[in-house]
Amino acid sequence: MPMSDIQANKHLAHLPGYHAGTSVEALKQSPMNPFLKVASNENMMGPAAKPEQLLESLETLAVYPDSSRHPLLQALAKTHQVTKPSLLLGNGSDECFDLICKAYLSEGDIVLSSEHTFSMYKLYSLAVGASYKELPMAQWGYDLNAIADSICDKTKLIFIANPNNPTGSFIKQADIQAFLQKVPSSVLVVLDEAYKDFVPDEATDSNVPLIQQFSNLVITRTFSKLYGLAGLRIGYAISNEAIIATLKKVKSPFNVNKLALDAAAIALKNAAFIKASLSMNSAGLAQYKQAASNWPVTLLPSFANFICLILTHHSGAAVYDALLEQGIISRNLASFGIKNGCRISIGTTEQNDRVIQALNHIFSKGDKA
Amino acid sequence: MPMSDIQANKHLAHLPGYHAGTSVEALKQSPMNPFLKVASNENMMGPAAKPEQLLESLETLAVYPDSSRHPLLQALAKTHQVTKPSLLLGNGSDECFDLICKAYLSEGDIVLSSEHTFSMYKLYSLAVGASYKELPMAQWGYDLNAIADSICDKTKLIFIANPNNPTGSFIKQADIQAFLQKVPSSVLVVLDEAYKDFVPDEATDSNVPLIQQFSNLVITRTFSKLYGLAGLRIGYAISNEAIIATLKKVKSPFNVNKLALDAAAIALKNAAFIKASLSMNSAGLAQYKQAASNWPVTLLPSFANFICLILTHHSGAAVYDALLEQGIISRNLASFGIKNGCRISIGTTEQNDRVIQALNHIFSKGDKA
Repeated sequence: MPMSDIQANKHLAHLPGYHAGTSVEALKQSPMNPFLKVASNENMMGPAAKPEQLLESLETLAVYPDSSRHPLLQALAKTHQVTKPSLLLGNGSDECFDLICKAYLSEGDIVLSSEHTFSMYKLYSLAVGASYKELPMAQWGYDLNAIADSICDKTKLIFIANPNNPTGSFIKQADIQAFLQKVPSSVLVVLDEAYKDFVPDEATDSNVPLIQQFSNLVITRTFSKLYGLAGLRIGYAISNEAIIATLKKVKSPFNVNKLALDAAAIALKNAAFIKASLSMNSAGLAQYKQAASNWPVTLLPSFANFICLILTHHSGAAVYDALLEQGIISRNLASFGIKNGCRISIGTTEQNDRVIQALNHIFSKGDKA
Repeated sequence: MPMSDIQANKHLAHLPGYHAGTSVEALKQSPMNPFLKVASNENMMGPAAKPEQLLESLETLAVYPDSSRHPLLQALAKTHQVTKPSLLLGNGSDECFDLICKAYLSEGDIVLSSEHTFSMYKLYSLAVGASYKELPMAQWGYDLNAIADSICDKTKLIFIANPNNPTGSFIKQADIQAFLQKVPSSVLVVLDEAYKDFVPDEATDSNVPLIQQFSNLVITRTFSKLYGLAGLRIGYAISNEAIIATLKKVKSPFNVNKLALDAAAIALKNAAFIKASLSMNSAGLAQYKQAASNWPVTLLPSFANFICLILTHHSGAAVYDALLEQGIISRNLASFGIKNGCRISIGTTEQNDRVIQALNHIFSKGDKA
């Protein structure tokens, strides 16, 4: 193999890798199948669009997708009470973040966010040569005051995960609004609402109307969590039409696949599935709350479809390993900067029971690491 | 709607839009359904992975895809006789181009390619602030000498579509090799082989072994054309492991969806479908060759799944409109810089007949525009 003389952009030298939750495939050689994966906050009930509803879509796979005219756009516009040109569909909300960085950031720009949050904000920012500054948290949640106080002339973009992954914290609309009033209108604020669907009364507390008031606000949502379509990759951004038009300039023409478009449109209408998922989630939260009262942990209040345990005596790695020995794939939060953290996706009562029993066993042994 | 104070990167001001082939959805309001779409070089036989083969995949849509461990990678490695770390899967080969530009280009860099070629090369180059220079063609094909002669200190990347879209021209392996010998090893050469599957004896003329010889070569392929999976978005890049590792740094972790991975793995093994598609294509080429002998056109020799007509008396727009009146969606090549050009995807004998009859009608009328 020849060595390459091609120089990549120099800021790539400092790009850290992304640590995904361990996939079942990564462990397939093990005799312990079937694994229970609670590592990636997928919907444990499966997808909101069922195989039989997608058969017709499979007939049309040879044709390039035309997302600009797909009924999903109209359905989303109606759901959020916005115009279609206020919406950008992405290959996951991941792609929306990537496009935002590509369109708005360049070398010398500073991006602000919080410690202990979704790591792709940092990766996408660094990949286009911007610098990225993480502010400390307050009580395991975003400290918006600290972020506002850190804004300087070079600040171009602020990422806020709300609810936050992995701590599960949530900022109410009034506080978001107060924060936006402090941010100069030349600084873009990206509100990542991947988990907002799980917040009780989320519709009545929608942040989308703030887009009318703040010209620098972009809200992102996903079909990967509540709607159970992580495997298909579809998310979207909502903003004013000028910002969405700019993002479309750097978007590939066929960025979202046809099956994702069709499945998302079906999922959005599946009220029974949504209700059952939310009900499963709140029951699971209660289940974990009760169980955790006997564990040497702090269970952070969660507004999402996962729980975050701050371990009193254990490392996240030790609990990850111990759970894996019992066939459970959890998330060690070391890569989020929480060495004594463990994140577990909420599942069905039976799935949660399996995890709880495993954790009871681990914590009762008194093993520490 | 508030005006936005957010300044996008300044080079976005000069980004032209991408002109996709007209989709059937764009015309749905018309009474002329069903349209025959021959505008986007899709496989007119449909997808190489059939609905019944994909049912199991639909059960797993809630789970994030793990493309790094998908059997497709091993299958592609075997097909091309390369290592798995020499392969990068993309959300269409489009995404491979985007990642290449993102990783290697910055402001001041010059990208070279040809006039009358795939327009995304220019868009991705400009989107990251590079400049883009198109060299004139020789006999409706890439003029590799002109490109080699234009290389200067600032040249960083060269895009070559082979076969070329939309002119159908093809450069043999020996000529590619001779060209690569003239290119400094610090200049990346991207060989876009989206249509290479249609070249007779393509396997024996593979350019992939050149990757061992030239450390600056990236080859891209797609499942959107021969394999009929345009709707799912999957393509890939082949290069040396160092370049692929760099591209992976700027790739999103879940860029390729699970259904695309599964369908591509199935498609790759569908020898009967591949044989039938290639046979349909060569029969269609012969069909058009015969018909075109009576038309006021130059039919360019095509090594792909489309024909390119250079119209003697008509504009591409006039032929596009006249075909549309007969329910056929073709491709006007004005956006490729060929105002008197028309591109038509090859389909089944019956589909080709329908297009040929329509063109016979148009050309017999003597309408000119």
